[in-house]
Order: sequence, then structure tokens, then C-alpha cells
Amino acid sequence: MVKEVETMQANQMETKIMSQVTLGHYLLDRLSQEGVTEIFGVPGDYNFSLLDTIEKFENIWFVNGRNELNAGYAADAYARLKGLSALITTFGVGEMSACNAVAGANSENVPIVHIVGTPPSMAQQEHKLMHHTLMDGNYDVFRKVYEPLSAYTAVLTPENAVFEISKALHIAKEKRKPVYLMVAIDLVTKPIVLPQQQITLPSTKTNQTTLQAALDHAKQLLKQAQKTVLLVDVKTIRFTLEQPVIQLAEAMNIPVASTLYGKGGFDESHPQFIGVYGGAFGRQTVRTTVENADCIIAVGLVWADSNTANFTAKLNPSQLIQIQPNKVKIGAAEYPQVLAEDMLQALQSIGYQEQGTVIKGAFPYDQVIGEPEQALTAASYYPRLQQFLKTGDIVIAETGTFYYGMTQVKLPQSATFIAQGGWQSIGYATPSTYGACIAAPNRRVLLFTGDGALQLTVQEISSMLIHGLRPIIFVLNNHGYTIEKYLNVKTENQNYNQVPNWSYAKLMEVFGGEAFSTTVQNNGELDAALTRVETESQNKLCLIEMIVQDPMDAPQYMLNMRNYLEKQEKQRS
Amino acid sequence: MVKEVETMQANQMETKIMSQVTLGHYLLDRLSQEGVTEIFGVPGDYNFSLLDTIEKFENIWFVNGRNELNAGYAADAYARLKGLSALITTFGVGEMSACNAVAGANSENVPIVHIVGTPPSMAQQEHKLMHHTLMDGNYDVFRKVYEPLSAYTAVLTPENAVFEISKALHIAKEKRKPVYLMVAIDLVTKPIVLPQQQITLPSTKTNQTTLQAALDHAKQLLKQAQKTVLLVDVKTIRFTLEQPVIQLAEAMNIPVASTLYGKGGFDESHPQFIGVYGGAFGRQTVRTTVENADCIIAVGLVWADSNTANFTAKLNPSQLIQIQPNKVKIGAAEYPQVLAEDMLQALQSIGYQEQGTVIKGAFPYDQVIGEPEQALTAASYYPRLQQFLKTGDIVIAETGTFYYGMTQVKLPQSATFIAQGGWQSIGYATPSTYGACIAAPNRRVLLFTGDGALQLTVQEISSMLIHGLRPIIFVLNNHGYTIEKYLNVKTENQNYNQVPNWSYAKLMEVFGGEAFSTTVQNNGELDAALTRVETESQNKLCLIEMIVQDPMDAPQYMLNMRNYLEKQEKQRS
Repeated sequence: MVKEVETMQANQMETKIMSQVTLGHYLLDRLSQEGVTEIFGVPGDYNFSLLDTIEKFENIWFVNGRNELNAGYAADAYARLKGLSALITTFGVGEMSACNAVAGANSENVPIVHIVGTPPSMAQQEHKLMHHTLMDGNYDVFRKVYEPLSAYTAVLTPENAVFEISKALHIAKEKRKPVYLMVAIDLVTKPIVLPQQQITLPSTKTNQTTLQAALDHAKQLLKQAQKTVLLVDVKTIRFTLEQPVIQLAEAMNIPVASTLYGKGGFDESHPQFIGVYGGAFGRQTVRTTVENADCIIAVGLVWADSNTANFTAKLNPSQLIQIQPNKVKIGAAEYPQVLAEDMLQALQSIGYQEQGTVIKGAFPYDQVIGEPEQALTAASYYPRLQQFLKTGDIVIAETGTFYYGMTQVKLPQSATFIAQGGWQSIGYATPSTYGACIAAPNRRVLLFTGDGALQLTVQEISSMLIHGLRPIIFVLNNHGYTIEKYLNVKTENQNYNQVPNWSYAKLMEVFGGEAFSTTVQNNGELDAALTRVETESQNKLCLIEMIVQDPMDAPQYMLNMRNYLEKQEKQRS
Repeated sequence: MVKEVETMQANQMETKIMSQVTLGHYLLDRLSQEGVTEIFGVPGDYNFSLLDTIEKFENIWFVNGRNELNAGYAADAYARLKGLSALITTFGVGEMSACNAVAGANSENVPIVHIVGTPPSMAQQEHKLMHHTLMDGNYDVFRKVYEPLSAYTAVLTPENAVFEISKALHIAKEKRKPVYLMVAIDLVTKPIVLPQQQITLPSTKTNQTTLQAALDHAKQLLKQAQKTVLLVDVKTIRFTLEQPVIQLAEAMNIPVASTLYGKGGFDESHPQFIGVYGGAFGRQTVRTTVENADCIIAVGLVWADSNTANFTAKLNPSQLIQIQPNKVKIGAAEYPQVLAEDMLQALQSIGYQEQGTVIKGAFPYDQVIGEPEQALTAASYYPRLQQFLKTGDIVIAETGTFYYGMTQVKLPQSATFIAQGGWQSIGYATPSTYGACIAAPNRRVLLFTGDGALQLTVQEISSMLIHGLRPIIFVLNNHGYTIEKYLNVKTENQNYNQVPNWSYAKLMEVFGGEAFSTTVQNNGELDAALTRVETESQNKLCLIEMIVQDPMDAPQYMLNMRNYLEKQEKQRS
């Protein structure tokens, strides 16, 4: 592997200054240099010295989550918007509550620096039985838990802090993955020891020979092609490849589709964007264009079940140019050590260009339908939601009905779409909205969640209220886990898919703070609520509970999914 | 190690019947035989076949948690009351949310069978990228996460199900620890294959020679003793040693104290019970009796910081007889392979008996003080809470201020005290109350929680309401994480220890269901609320929010702790 010697910022600082910096302060300095201005977490007695250091630190604020899982989810959205985030938990009880958030960040390529405050180093060395342990004197057990979930783990000391923090940040950024750092409560305030040698860390760099070979191969394919399509997937977003992708698309003048996971990776108001490609479940015009292409350039593709409509997506491997963050695959040939930016750039030089305007059909929810007095249905409310969206919005879609529906809604320019397409942990979206509001205080943040999912992490609405944040929250009350009812084609009316029916609009009365909330059941009420929220949301948090009559009401995408699953089940039995 | 061949129940069933039993049904049968009548969990598409099996199964009901961490906490309390519990989560997203609950059960010796529904076996074999994975084709990663947290992990198949389930149950029961079982969604409905051979699993049995040696050693110590004390710790409760312990205490006619963790392990209304021993922080009369004893018999001792008042507890090792679940330690000598029951029984035969009545002082909160119009303080409300308790109550104390206070409250006869003395995960107590109500529908369940902790897991009140459960919930609103403010003696008024001020009494309006809730601020209001709740709680859930004026108001135990920590800090600086 080609490696580049990268001199870390640490070494650029002066020796004298460094030696007076405490471990905690150094860690914050490094995070601050990466653009981190807030750190999420929950206090616990083993992280007090970290939190006390933050309270005195100028450029970073500690932002409380109502629990650690929620703080982790918030950190996830923050990292998606700002490139990196940090999470502080306490040993054992705190960190063990955040496993799902960190595993999700791993699955979804989101870099979170998870910092865990641990018991005093002396107590650890003496294997004393301290609270928040498994009462076996083992202080390495929770790091072991995080090893399979993180790209890197380390136990910080004043001696290794410069190296370990540098390495962890380097890996988090290069791999877009969470990393895990433990530090004993008493070591946070100790001055760090400077490393004797320069720290060098390997970075992947493009091998020019391999790039040329990949390019030659691509040329062959494109020479015979007349209907090329660009398919944008999730790693385009995570590895911030949006700009080179749009440049290539414009140079080639070809239709662009995104996958479900890749939603938002390409400007959906762009004249070349034809829609979201969802195999057998998605829009058929998009499917036809993609599957009839004679060459497909796919950027950052993840060939997963929920990204390919249960693998019904069909991309001819021999016509497929896959550009991954640091490798290229064309047909059966792999070209390792080629950075995506370089390949995207190089492809422009080929000179392939299609003529005319890209033909695109209407998007599924372009037309507002449904009379005012008619009850809300997916067919009637998605067009209204699409119409409500504005340039620059951050759209957060919870796993479940709303996720599948919102992937079919056309996003306005400069919108960001946040969802866990692959990890799909219900409950993610609400705390994630909190993280997004903190990360992007000047953008409008819209949360689309369901009754089932909201109940998992509802307390984070309180955090948003106490910070005076102003997201617009849509709660789809469809009386249970509708997505689960869709996925289980073997039985019906499962008791376990019921959820208690809360009065969602009353939540603010419990939590306190400035808010506007309302409940709507028909199209006219939704229209009125949207108009009202347009202004109310300028100075307060807004919540619209959308009650649908039919618990099985769902967007077309899910109906198609259900049909497919039922057919499969019939074939099996 | 002496091992006994134990024939498992599985082998006592007839071959013909067995071979028609599906894996899922067999698993439920085995749990049912262990007394499990409810399984906690959250649905997810990879556990549908498990949940569908339960819906058709006669003797076990699936009980939804609002999220997996909460379901795990509920399962924890259920196991404390019924001896064993089960938890069902879905692969990845579900199970990763339950890590804290399972780690807590490990730390606290609580046997939970954690069952995880996983993707179809074919998808796993082909390393397909499925939702809820880390998108790397690795299906063993989450089992690896649970390996350090569980006493046993296994991946079930129709071929190994009888053996693996038998082994997992055996270990869970013998070690009082959580175990972890994965089963692919498609294998749940497959008939199990019967093992060719009898399954034999090792059990620890007392080595009679070692027992005699331990007994001889104990005799020597007791021969010289005149003031022996019995100290009851947490493993007395977890390994159900309460009966042999009380028999020994009565045979010897000696004073009995419990540790903090051991609270409730000995009938506190018993004439020999002198109180809770809390080293430098606890009641001094108890401390004097325990530390001046010339022999201490300690049962199930865990020498942990929060159990020994930061190691200020002083038990002379040379006068200490430690009886652990399967070993004895006297002075420096260890006697392995001695079961606690056998040692406790054998000790009675020595014939040691003290004369007269055990002298015991007043308990800290025996006297009700404070005028009706005076604001609530720890000194005034703990005596009222003590007076409110009734025979057979289940008292659940959340980590924090209430935990330390409630350990000093005298429990009535046949009461059960549930708390995480060692693991101390805030948020545990509310879902745990749900689990206790399900496990013991005919007992009164009282939850004592604080504002900070309640916010972590508040949604589980909704679960209790929808099941018509009737716990009495006391919410101590002391405006933040008071315990954390006590523990951090280096700084003051930390922003991070603030929590939003909710209107707790309004929670029921959001969640719906039959409930009585009220807010009290002075002693008279608390008295009136307690009288009202006495009757209201007979048919509905009750919540009393107790607002204290001073955020640093706390029980004497915590004031003593704070003084000690401040002195320590001064000595250091």
C-alpha cells in the first residue's frame, strides 16, 4: 500500500507550550482544530474532570443529552453536518448505553470521537472494585466491547496522548468511522508528555499507474456506450464527493439517479436528476432508465438489501463502473488505491458527453391531491410535505413509514437528507434532530417521525426546548409499528406491533418551553397547520401530529414492497 | 473441581414428541419450565418468527418495552423477583441498545436470557449486506460485543439447540449472570434435532473435606469470640441465601447488619437486625457494633467502593469469615468448592450462641419530624416514606439521592429492595418498576426516582399505564443531578449537572390511562398525598412529584460522604 508521511499538527506546536498543556486541554484543542464546537454527552462521576475542563475551555461547549444513546445519535447527525463530532460518556453505565449509536455510526460511515471518562488510574491498577464496573477488577472489558464497533480504540495517558489522539482522529477522518478513547479521571488534568519523534501516520494516496489502468478500462466501456447513467450512493455523501460528482455529471451530460441510501447526495432540483432508483419498489421510469443504461457509473455504492429493494435492483456487472472512496471496480476488475476524487476527475478527461436534455418524468409527489375535508393518506400528505420544503432545509427521516415515503419526496436545492438507510435503528431521528439543530443553528431542521419510533427517544424534544431550538417535528400517528406490519407477511394484527396512543401535542406541556403544537387529521387541517408553522417556527419549536385512520396507510414504495414480500412468501409455501 | 452429572430435563422428554418441536417452541418450553411467564423486548423484523411463536404459545406472554434498554432493565427486575427472565431483541439495532442493561445484570448477578433474532441464515452464510449490520458481511460482530458482558453466548441451530439452550440456562442459573443466544429468523420455525447422547453439565458441589476444614477454622475463631456479628451482603439475595442466613442468625442469636448492596437481604423488622452498615458515612451505632465485633460472618460480600463508603468500612481480616456462594474465606485462608448453603448449615452445628437480647439503636428515620407548612427536606420526608411502607412492598430506589436515602429507611417485613448498588446506572429504576409490576402483580410496587434519572427512561411509565399497572411513583425534583454535585468536590454549580424542569405530574396527560398525580412541596402536602395515594393506588398508577427548594438537600449519608470527599480533596491539594 502506498503510504504518505503526514506530519500531524501536534508537531507544529512549540515544545514549551505543549508541555504545559493538560491531557484534557490538548484533546479539546485537537477537536477544536477539527471544527468541533460542541461535544454531546451525559455527565457521570468518572467524566467530571473532562466536563470541568470543557466548562473552562473557550471554544467548545458541552451539550447534555437526556441519555447516552440519545447523545450518541445527536453526535451522529452533528458529524454528518460538520464532518466530525465528539461524545463524552462515563465508564460502564454511560458508554454501554451508547453502543447502538456508535454501531450505527460505524455502519453508516459517520466519524464520532467517543471519549470515556474512567475510574482513577490507581484504582484501576489495583483492580479495586469500583461502581460502574462488572465487579471483577477488569478495566479493559468495555474497551473490548467497543473494539468490534469502532475503527480504533485507545487508553490515553499523558505519555501517549499526542500519538493516540492523532492516530484516532486520523483514522476517524480517513475511514469515516467512530473511534474510542478512554481516559482516567485523574489523568485528564495531568500535563502531556511530548513525543520524542515526529508522528507519522499513513494515508491512502492514488497509485497513478492503477488510476490510468482503471481509466483505460472505463474508456473501453464508455466508447461503446450511448446511454450512460450516474448512480449516486451513500458514500458520495459520507466522503464528501458531491462536488466532483456533480462536475462529472455535468461534463458528461448524463442522467443522474440516487439510491435510497444516497438520497440527497445529488441536487434533486438539478436538470439532470431523474429520481431515486429503488429497484422493483421504486418509480418505474427511473428503474427503466437505470437498468436499460449501457454503462452505469456508481459512486460509493453499498449493495445492501434495503438499498436495492431486497436485491431486486439489477445493474449489469459488466457495464458497471464502481467508484468507491479509495478503489475502483469495473466489471470484474478491481483497481485498489485509487481515490474517488482522482477517478471522478480523470473520467471528465475522457470527453464522453451525451447530447440533448436529460429526459425526466414527474416525481411521485409533484401533484398535490386530496380535498381539504378528506382524511390524511400517504397519497395526500407527501405532496404537501414536498411543497413545504425550502432551499437549504435539513430533512431528517425516521426509519419506518416516513423514511420510505420521504425518500420519494423531491428535495429542494441545498437540502440535506439525514436518515439511517442501512442501520435503520428506530428512535434515531429525534435525537439526531437535536444534533442537527446544534450543528446548523441557521438552517431549518425538519423531523419526520412516527409514533412508534418517537416513543423510544422522546425525551430529546426536551433538550431542544431548553436550548430554544426550533425544529419542525412531524409525528405520523399511524397506531403502531406500521413498517413492521408491512414486513411481516406471515401473520396479521400482531399484538406486539401495537404502541400506546400518546397525546403527542401535549408533550410540550410536560417539557416546558416555547412551542407550537397541533393535531391534524385531514388535508385541510394539514394545509392550515403548515401555513401556521411557516411563521411559528421562526421563533419556536413546532410539532404537528398527523393522525391517519388506516394503520396500514403507507407510501407507494411500501405497498410495492409488501406485494413483493407476499409473492415471495407464496412461492416459499 | 468436583463435578456432578446433571441430567437435563430435555432428555426426559420422549423422542417422538421432541422431534416435532420447533426451535422456537422448544426455547419457550424451557423458559416456561423455569417459571418465566413473560418475556420482555421490542419487535424488529429479525425477531418476528420468535414473537409470532410467542403469540401462539400458551404460557408465555410478550411484554413490549418502549425501547430495548428499558426492556432490559424491566427484565432485570423481573429476574430479581422470579429467579430468571428473558429478553428478546432484534439483530444489531435492538441488541446494541440493551448493552447497558445486560452489563448491569452481569455486574449485579442477575440472570437474564437475552435472545436475539438474526437475519435469515442463508443471507448470513452468503455474507450479504443486510440492514441492521455494519455493512461488512460480518454476522459474528455483535456476539463478540456481548461476549465480555455475558457468562455465555451461542448461535442456535436446530442441531445444537437442545445442548446450547440447556447449557445457557444452566450457566445463567448457576452463576446468576446474563447469557446470550442468537437465532436466525428462519430457524425458529425449524424442528429441532435431538442430541444423540445425554447432555451432562457440570455443577459445583461442596467438597466435604474442604467444608470440614473451613468449619474447623471457623470454630477456632468463634471459640475466642464473644461479640460476633453477621453481615449480610448482596450475594445473599442474588443466590437466595436469605433462609439459611436467618436460621444461622437465630441459632447464634447475634446482631445482624446488612451492607448497602445487601439492603433487604435480612428482614429489617427482625429483633436481631441492627441496621445498614455504611462505614464512615452510615449510622455510627451500627459501625461501632460491626467494627468492634471480635468475629464477623459476612455472607456474599462485595468489597466495592459504594458498598464500603469509599473503603472506609473496616473489617479486621483476621476476624472475618467470608461465606461466598461457592467458597469460604477465613482470615487469609481460602476454602474453594464449598457451597454457601452447606457452610451456613454447618456453622449452626458449632453451637455458638450469644445470650440476651440484641441491642439496637433507633433507625435514622424512625421519628417523623417537620411541621406541615415547612418545606420538604430529606430529614422530614424520609421518615414519612418509612411510615408509608407496608409489609410485602417492593421498594425500588433509583441511583442517586433517593438510593442513599432509601438504604437508611427501615423496611417492613417481607419487603423487597431493588436497586443497582454497584452498577448504578441512572434511569434503571423506572423500567425496573415496570418489570417488577409484571413479575409480582399482587404486590405493591413503589418507585423512588429523581428528576435527573427519570428523564433517561421516562417512556416506560407509558408501558405501565397501558397494562393497567399500579405502581406508586415518587419523583424527587431537586433540580438536577444532585448526587453528581455531591460527588464533584472540585468545582461548583456545574452547568452540566442541570436538567430541564419538567411538569412531571402532567406526564399522564400525554401517556393516557388511569392515573393519579400530584405535586407536593411541604410536609403537610406530602402527608395528604400519601393518605390519598393509599386508596388511589388500589386501582390506578400514582405519581407524587416532591419538589425540594434546596438542590443540595440530601440525606445524612450523602452529607457525610461529601464531608469525607472534601477532606480527601484538601489533603491532596
